[in-house]
Amino acid sequence: MTDVHATSVGRVTPQLAEFEQPLHLQSGGKLDGFHLIYECYGERNADSSNAVLICHALSSDHHAAGFHDGNQPDGWWEVMIGPGKPIDTNKFYVVCCNNLGGCNGSSGPSTINPATGKPFGPDFPMVTVSDWVMAQSLLADQLGISRWAAVVGGSLGGMQVLEWSRRFPERIAHAVVIAAAAKLTAQNIGFNDVARQAIRTDPEFHKGDYYSHNTIPRRGLRVARMMGHITYLSESAMASKFGRNLRHKETFDYEFDPEFEVESYLRHQGDQFVNRFDANTYLLMTKALDYFDPAAECNGNLDAALSAATADFLVLSFSSDWRFTPERSREIVRALQTNHLNVSYAEIEAQQGHDSFLLDIPDYLHIMRAYMNRVARVIKHG
Amino acid sequence: MTDVHATSVGRVTPQLAEFEQPLHLQSGGKLDGFHLIYECYGERNADSSNAVLICHALSSDHHAAGFHDGNQPDGWWEVMIGPGKPIDTNKFYVVCCNNLGGCNGSSGPSTINPATGKPFGPDFPMVTVSDWVMAQSLLADQLGISRWAAVVGGSLGGMQVLEWSRRFPERIAHAVVIAAAAKLTAQNIGFNDVARQAIRTDPEFHKGDYYSHNTIPRRGLRVARMMGHITYLSESAMASKFGRNLRHKETFDYEFDPEFEVESYLRHQGDQFVNRFDANTYLLMTKALDYFDPAAECNGNLDAALSAATADFLVLSFSSDWRFTPERSREIVRALQTNHLNVSYAEIEAQQGHDSFLLDIPDYLHIMRAYMNRVARVIKHG
Repeated sequence: MTDVHATSVGRVTPQLAEFEQPLHLQSGGKLDGFHLIYECYGERNADSSNAVLICHALSSDHHAAGFHDGNQPDGWWEVMIGPGKPIDTNKFYVVCCNNLGGCNGSSGPSTINPATGKPFGPDFPMVTVSDWVMAQSLLADQLGISRWAAVVGGSLGGMQVLEWSRRFPERIAHAVVIAAAAKLTAQNIGFNDVARQAIRTDPEFHKGDYYSHNTIPRRGLRVARMMGHITYLSESAMASKFGRNLRHKETFDYEFDPEFEVESYLRHQGDQFVNRFDANTYLLMTKALDYFDPAAECNGNLDAALSAATADFLVLSFSSDWRFTPERSREIVRALQTNHLNVSYAEIEAQQGHDSFLLDIPDYLHIMRAYMNRVARVIKHG
Repeated sequence: MTDVHATSVGRVTPQLAEFEQPLHLQSGGKLDGFHLIYECYGERNADSSNAVLICHALSSDHHAAGFHDGNQPDGWWEVMIGPGKPIDTNKFYVVCCNNLGGCNGSSGPSTINPATGKPFGPDFPMVTVSDWVMAQSLLADQLGISRWAAVVGGSLGGMQVLEWSRRFPERIAHAVVIAAAAKLTAQNIGFNDVARQAIRTDPEFHKGDYYSHNTIPRRGLRVARMMGHITYLSESAMASKFGRNLRHKETFDYEFDPEFEVESYLRHQGDQFVNRFDANTYLLMTKALDYFDPAAECNGNLDAALSAATADFLVLSFSSDWRFTPERSREIVRALQTNHLNVSYAEIEAQQGHDSFLLDIPDYLHIMRAYMNRVARVIKHG
């Protein structure tokens, strides 16, 4: 057994949870029923007090750790979750589900609408962070988990953690909010809308019903991802990784084929993404980001919006993250402190930009490990 | 006469300069002949020693000041050029031409190729900052201007100023380099390539020959401009201007029509741009930006690349410009200082991001006015 496997949760089998009751959504829409795909890692203890919920970000899913086929671990948070890792599956029972509206097994635009026998497409209702948390709470009910030892997430996942902490304070002991924000800035909303416009104006979009035309809005989704990818990295990370290096040549050819390495890298990222992600889901996820703003319910007062929270918090930001800057995390920290909550905050020096929350950054993993050791103290043994 | 007119150059008539000699381009390509459209403001003195050249940026043109039709001044640098303005047309004879490859009257992809009787389209050769400066020097020859009192430009225009200073040191007394860089970063190249991919993968692009299909790659150019526009503003400028304000409503409608003001603003910017700018020109201009890197000719040594320069320099940057950051300007300043040149540098506190160089920012205009007064001392009177 290699080292990779010694610290991996190994082969995992996704599971499906069916919900037959109607789900009333924040938008006023409704789903008559839905299903969520999820994975679990580690052993659950007798009273489920070691359960940790992982909330995923924009373009990931339930497959946070381990592997399905082959034998190479390929979960999106492999650095974080596993035996001996910061979220240690020797201690915790870890659950991660694909969010409602997703494209990797949970009910979403690309799944079959039982009412029509065809994919939902544009008829899938708009979903919000609040809806996701509600759906996750129903999953917790079904699994018999009354209270999470911790709810943990980065980026859009961190928004779900915030929502859990205020919506179900009695069901969450610790909240770990990484590289997140209490609301998007105008710049963020702008980038999201450019991405949406790229997709929605692609002639292959067919008003969202591209499934029935046997096509996908490949060009638009590719451009959206290329742009998004730039914003997940820092300028200095791109400078270190690519600089002005040319691709397989010494001098310019003065053509539109990629000349710089950064061009072929971004195009490759775009191409890969199109093959694994559904455009309608991308639209829904970006809208969920835009809509999230708990303070708006309280006349813009974030202190008031978080006043119901009782969890202990770890809030983390990354110095070079310009999409969700450290200042956005400090806003959250100030509001939590105003509510006299236990809050640990660290701004981690890291060059990798917003993507840092997914990466093997020793200071970051060290802090997570230390905090999760503290979380482990709430587990009841015996 | 209103105040607007008192400080405007008034009605201007663009002029056309024809060049019948072949122009050999940096790419190895060649134009058998070409034409440049240009405008002039102010009175030329007897020996043309009061001539100032303005170099334009990515998406602007020769129409820097005054008006053509109607009577409202609408030049892109109206704040800077006019009687009593920082570049004072009571003192200077100001020339601005549309660059080669442009779409507003100079030879470019949308002009007729004499060899075929059809628009050049994709057959128009790649052009570089160096080619532009060569073409501008031929225009200066034709106008009988042996030496510019100053060459002035912002952004891509500032790159042209740098190139003038090292290519034709004897023909430029003062160089004013605003919000520029000696080369693009990987991030900048990345954004440019996303823009190009948006255009080139638009089904209406037809490999650049959309003219003969009576269409334009409207969707791609619109998305490119929307994205570009975000990068020309600062996050804080967008926060001040739009924040999370909703458009004509109090609550969300949970739909894909614009909900936030910033969405409708960006879409409007994209729509407007498509009606005034040619997609092939946009492609060429972004490539010219990518290619510019004078230090590359000297093993990456910018000091050496600028060693031929003799002009006095004003270098300006803006604190919130994240596309061409103040650090990029300081790199230029250091190289000029190493070459023992007279360099004035200011980093102007401004919230408006890269677009600051086009805007009415008092500190900025004050510095420009003071420096141009110094430039005026090189003018020979009599």
